[in-house]
Amino acid sequence: MCTECGCGLSGEPAQGGRQSMVHGPEHPHVHSSEAGTGPGSHSQVVPVQRALLEKNQRLAERNRGFFRAKNLLVLNIMSAPGSGKTTFIEATAQALAGRARLGVIVGDLATDNDAARLRAAGIPAIQVSTGTVCHLDAAMVSRAAQQLDLDSLDLLCIENVGNLVCPADFDLGEDLRVVLMSVTEGEDKPLKYPPLFHSAHVAVLTKCDLAAAAGFNRDLALANLRRISHHARIFEVSARTGDGMAAWAEYLLRVRQAPKPDD
Amino acid sequence: MCTECGCGLSGEPAQGGRQSMVHGPEHPHVHSSEAGTGPGSHSQVVPVQRALLEKNQRLAERNRGFFRAKNLLVLNIMSAPGSGKTTFIEATAQALAGRARLGVIVGDLATDNDAARLRAAGIPAIQVSTGTVCHLDAAMVSRAAQQLDLDSLDLLCIENVGNLVCPADFDLGEDLRVVLMSVTEGEDKPLKYPPLFHSAHVAVLTKCDLAAAAGFNRDLALANLRRISHHARIFEVSARTGDGMAAWAEYLLRVRQAPKPDD
Repeated sequence: MCTECGCGLSGEPAQGGRQSMVHGPEHPHVHSSEAGTGPGSHSQVVPVQRALLEKNQRLAERNRGFFRAKNLLVLNIMSAPGSGKTTFIEATAQALAGRARLGVIVGDLATDNDAARLRAAGIPAIQVSTGTVCHLDAAMVSRAAQQLDLDSLDLLCIENVGNLVCPADFDLGEDLRVVLMSVTEGEDKPLKYPPLFHSAHVAVLTKCDLAAAAGFNRDLALANLRRISHHARIFEVSARTGDGMAAWAEYLLRVRQAPKPDD
Repeated sequence: MCTECGCGLSGEPAQGGRQSMVHGPEHPHVHSSEAGTGPGSHSQVVPVQRALLEKNQRLAERNRGFFRAKNLLVLNIMSAPGSGKTTFIEATAQALAGRARLGVIVGDLATDNDAARLRAAGIPAIQVSTGTVCHLDAAMVSRAAQQLDLDSLDLLCIENVGNLVCPADFDLGEDLRVVLMSVTEGEDKPLKYPPLFHSAHVAVLTKCDLAAAAGFNRDLALANLRRISHHARIFEVSARTGDGMAAWAEYLLRVRQAPKPDD
């Protein structure tokens, strides 16, 4: 929630982002950047933000080095609330059974539900309770990772807080940023949340078994994904039926064997 | 996104929130409040946050007074991305046709899609492009409202950015905070996002036509809603089939006629 984590510091939002805007030309609309100055304006906010993001980036690189030394493939799994992250992780563990061992760090504002579910399925899992903070950060991940036996794992899934905005800028030290989008959410989410979708290495359409019932337009969704998630590998799955999970598991095994980039 | 709006200021999240946490007692978990101090820590962040929220609260009250003078019932409609806010607003306008005139302010990071859809359905609508900011605030709403002919309206729906975390603390000057939760998101969202659900005057279960296909546990969802959204009136609707929309429309007409509180 914004009181404590600082989302409220919106007096001077960015002039242009990583992704250009899409507007109909003929109708009125308002840009938030027309906000006036006042408390929390540019001069106060930006240095604090920059320091925080720089600190997070350093801790994320430390995580990255640590995870590499442990020979882990690390995924930062992000989506809207209710897109099926936990079910997808459970199905991923099943699809990899006997070939790769998976552990999970899962973030939520409140409850231990997801970690409890995963542990009940035999998957080592640590819950991070963010309280009111709308995303995980590298420090939270570092502390949680210390509670897992990383030497017994091949793959670490970090399930971020359900949020298509705020996790975009927080590197956690992952190898792959994975964004999930369920077919019941509509086709336009990449266009509406471009920073997060743009940053994804992998995009996964989930709940594909519900596509017909939801009236999902697959071609439109894939076109929107390709427009924003330029470099993302796209998978289509149903964790419930298992459709598509084998191809996803094979992909993970291949990526885990590939050399990691030096940059 | 957190870089510009300040979500990154998470070095010192709250010690306890408006809603107590729910944890399994026997398993390890990590609280984000164990974060160390550093750049962006308490001393820097809290005064800036407080000033911003106080400023927002003042502007929200000004909005509230302005909207009352215009005899408008104002809804702040919040949900996860893809819960069906825009479709619900369209169906609300249909259900009220001939009895109340509805206008919309709609927030998204990017695109004019929702406002264009609403205008195509004959509903006056203004799009607010937040750029990278994860919620609407009172100043954005005030500017957008100036572009609507409020004297021709009875009801103003403010469709917030799709996000179950960050909009919780930003009063926009609304009469009713309305949270939507689609049956395809699972039953546990109130437990996982307690601040926003706790603040709701109304909770609406949407996409009820998909309940069977999604394996939705209605009793569990209602129990979770009642646990967190203590004071909320609950509606169950399908905007696609129209089920439940008549009861919702009658409720809005009754609330609009009721005297507004003085406090």
